[in-house]
Amino acid sequence: MIVEIITTGSELLLGQIVNTNVVWMARHLNEIGFDVCYQTTVGDNRARMKEAVSHALTRADIVITSGGLGPTRGDITKEVCAEVFGRSLSLDEEYADWLKAGFKKRERAFTENNLRQAMIPDGAKIIYNHAGTAPGIVLEDGDGKVIINLPGPPHEMRDMFTRSVVPYLAERFGIDAVIISRVLDTFGIGESKLETEIQDLVLAQKNPTLALLVRPTGNIIRITAKARTEDDARALIAPVESEIRARVGEYIYGVDDEPMEEIVGAMLKSRGLTIAAAESCTGGLFTSRMTDVAGSSSYVRGGIVSYTNEVKRDALGVKQEDLDAYGAVSEEVAREMAEGVRAKIGASIGVGITGNAGPSASEGKPVGLVYIAVSGVRSTVVTRNIFTGSRSQIKLSASQAAMNMVRKYLMDER
Amino acid sequence: MIVEIITTGSELLLGQIVNTNVVWMARHLNEIGFDVCYQTTVGDNRARMKEAVSHALTRADIVITSGGLGPTRGDITKEVCAEVFGRSLSLDEEYADWLKAGFKKRERAFTENNLRQAMIPDGAKIIYNHAGTAPGIVLEDGDGKVIINLPGPPHEMRDMFTRSVVPYLAERFGIDAVIISRVLDTFGIGESKLETEIQDLVLAQKNPTLALLVRPTGNIIRITAKARTEDDARALIAPVESEIRARVGEYIYGVDDEPMEEIVGAMLKSRGLTIAAAESCTGGLFTSRMTDVAGSSSYVRGGIVSYTNEVKRDALGVKQEDLDAYGAVSEEVAREMAEGVRAKIGASIGVGITGNAGPSASEGKPVGLVYIAVSGVRSTVVTRNIFTGSRSQIKLSASQAAMNMVRKYLMDER
Repeated sequence: MIVEIITTGSELLLGQIVNTNVVWMARHLNEIGFDVCYQTTVGDNRARMKEAVSHALTRADIVITSGGLGPTRGDITKEVCAEVFGRSLSLDEEYADWLKAGFKKRERAFTENNLRQAMIPDGAKIIYNHAGTAPGIVLEDGDGKVIINLPGPPHEMRDMFTRSVVPYLAERFGIDAVIISRVLDTFGIGESKLETEIQDLVLAQKNPTLALLVRPTGNIIRITAKARTEDDARALIAPVESEIRARVGEYIYGVDDEPMEEIVGAMLKSRGLTIAAAESCTGGLFTSRMTDVAGSSSYVRGGIVSYTNEVKRDALGVKQEDLDAYGAVSEEVAREMAEGVRAKIGASIGVGITGNAGPSASEGKPVGLVYIAVSGVRSTVVTRNIFTGSRSQIKLSASQAAMNMVRKYLMDER
Repeated sequence: MIVEIITTGSELLLGQIVNTNVVWMARHLNEIGFDVCYQTTVGDNRARMKEAVSHALTRADIVITSGGLGPTRGDITKEVCAEVFGRSLSLDEEYADWLKAGFKKRERAFTENNLRQAMIPDGAKIIYNHAGTAPGIVLEDGDGKVIINLPGPPHEMRDMFTRSVVPYLAERFGIDAVIISRVLDTFGIGESKLETEIQDLVLAQKNPTLALLVRPTGNIIRITAKARTEDDARALIAPVESEIRARVGEYIYGVDDEPMEEIVGAMLKSRGLTIAAAESCTGGLFTSRMTDVAGSSSYVRGGIVSYTNEVKRDALGVKQEDLDAYGAVSEEVAREMAEGVRAKIGASIGVGITGNAGPSASEGKPVGLVYIAVSGVRSTVVTRNIFTGSRSQIKLSASQAAMNMVRKYLMDER
C-alpha cells in the first residue's frame, strides 16, 4: 500500500517551523510496513489543497493529512477532503456533546465556533481526540482509497495515530510484514567513539539494519528487523543486541527511548527510596524532570535551587570556608550540597549539582564544568564533568548525567 | 511567482531525518518575496520523481529540487529533470577540468564516476559548487518555467543558494518585494476566543495578512506584510497591530516570540529585584526556565521544590492546620508558599505554585487545577487556574502562567 502524507499550514510553507509531524508519521508508517512514497505540504488555500489531495489520490492508496482541523475559518482540511470524495458535512451530536462535556469539565467557555469541530463528513469514521478537541476523520471511497485527517499539534496527532490509526490500518489492510525496531539508549559516549566501536556491525548488517542517531539526552543505536512475524523479527535482533552490549554495554542505560527519569523513578519506587536534589546550574531542571513521571510524588520529596552562595550556605549548610577556598563550582561544594539536601529535606538519596552553564567563564571555572554528587546512607560519590553546547544543552546534559549517577549508585547498592 | 520545492531521498521518506533543507529554502525564498505554495518529497525512483517534477510544473513557475546530484547511480535528479524538459546530457569539459583540479588540490583520487557530475543537460546554466563537487543546474523552458537542481548536503545547498540562486532569481524575475512578519505573543486566551475577537480582521485583511497559531506557551497572532521596502511593510503592520492591541491587548505579553522568561528576567533586572519560587506541581520547572536566561544569576536567588506536605511545612513554613483544612492544592497554601519562600530565601518577589498535574484527581482536586501566588513587599495575589493537556503540558502552562503573573505584578508596581 502506497501512502502519501500531506501536511498543511502556512508556517511550513513560510519555513517558520520544521515539519516534525511528517518525519514522525513516516517513521511509524514504515515501521508497520507501509511505504510512504510521497510527502506534500500545502497551505490553507482551498483550491490548492483540493488539487493536492486529488492528485495524491491518483498516485497513493492512503492519504494521511495533518493540520487544519481546528475550530477557525482557516481550518479547511476536513471540508476540502470531504469535497474531494463528494460528501457533505453534518453535525455529529454525539461528538458535540463529548466536546461540550470536556469544556465544562475544564471550566472553559464553549464558543459556537467549536461546533465546527463536530461537523463530520457523511459516512466518515470519527477518531476521538483524547489530547485536544478536533476529531480525526477516516474517509473511504468505493475504490479502496482512504483519506485520514489528523490534527496538526504533534501531541494530538501522535496520540491519535498510535491509539486509533495504527489499529485501523492493521485491520483494514492487514499487515503481513512487520518491522520491529529496538533502540539502545546510551549516555556518556560520543558519536564518533560509538561509531568506531560498532561500525563493522553497521556496515555488515542487512537485516537487521543498524543506525546510530544523535540525541540531546545521549546517542542511540537503533536495530531494525523486518520479518513475517514479530517473534521472527525479535529473533533477528537479539544476537545483534548481545554483540553491541558486549562492546558498549557500560554506556547503555535503557531501551526503546524510555526516559531516564522513568528508569530512575522505577528503581527508587521498587526499593521504597526517596530523593531530593540541591541544584545550582541546572536551576531546578533535575527535579522538574524527575517529577515529569506520573506517580513521582511517592519518591520525589523535593529540592532546593541554590542559585546564590547564601542559599547554599543557609538552606543547605554548605560551609562558607569551602565556598571561599574552592569556589561554588567544586567537588567539595557538590558533596556538601548533596549531603545537605539529603539531611534538610529528609530523603534516602541526595543529589548536588553545581557548575557553570555559561555563556561565559566564571570564577575561573570554564563553561560546561559541572560537579555532580550523589549521597546515600552508604557513601557520597562525586564526578567532574565537562559538557558542551548551549546553556540549555549543558543544563539538560547535567540533569541527565545526575540521573545516570543515581541509577548507577542504586545498581551498585543491590 | 509560485515556487514548488521538491526534496528527494529515501531517508526523508523513511522518516530517518528531519527535512531541514526545505525549511531553510522556504524561509529564504519567502524573505525575497517568492511564494512557496507546495513542498513535495519523493524517493530516488525514476518514474515517481518524473511524475512529481512534471506535476509540479503544472502548478508552479519555479521548481527547486534538493538532493540526488551525487556521483552514484542512485543520483538521478538531474537526468530526470532534463528528461522532463526533453534535453539530453553531455560532458561539460570546463566543469570536468574544474572538478579534476579540485581533486588534485585536495590530493584525492579522481574516480570515473565523478565524471557523471560533469554531465550537463543541454542549454543548462551551471551553478558552481564551492562547498562540494556536484554542480547545480538551472533549466529554463520556452514558456517561462524554471527548474533549479541543488545538492542535498545542507552546507552545499545553502552556499549555492545564497551565492548563485538568489542573484539568478533577482535578475531573472526582478525582486521588488519584501515580506515582514510581526508576532504578538498572547497568554491566557484560548484559540477559539481569540479568533472570535479578531476574526473580522482576519477575514478582511489582505495585506497585511493575519494568522492565528497555537503554541504550547500561548497562542500567537502573526501579522505579515508585503511591500516594496521594509519601512513600507512596517507601516502596513502598525495600524493592524494597534487595532489588535485595542481588542486583546491585556493578553499580549510580548512580541516576536521572545520567551516569557526573558521578558520577566529583564523586568526584574532593570528594577534591581530578585525572585525565588516555591514549587509543588511544577517540580522546579518555573525556576529552571527562569535560569535558562544568560545572566539570570543576578536576579534568581533560588527556590524550594516542596513535593510533600512535610517540606511545605518545614522548609516553607506552611501551616499544618491550613494543609489539613484546605488541602495542599488550595489558595491558602499557594499564598503561604509564596510568602514563605520569599522570607526563607530572602528575595524581593516570592512565587508559590501548587496544583494537580495529573494524571488522576487527588484529594478531590481535579487534574489541571493549579493555584499560583505572587508575593512582594506590597501584597500577595493568588489565582485559580485550570490547565489542560498532558502532565508536561500542565507543568509548562503553570510555569508560564506564574511568569505572566509576575510580569503583571511588576507592571502594576510602577
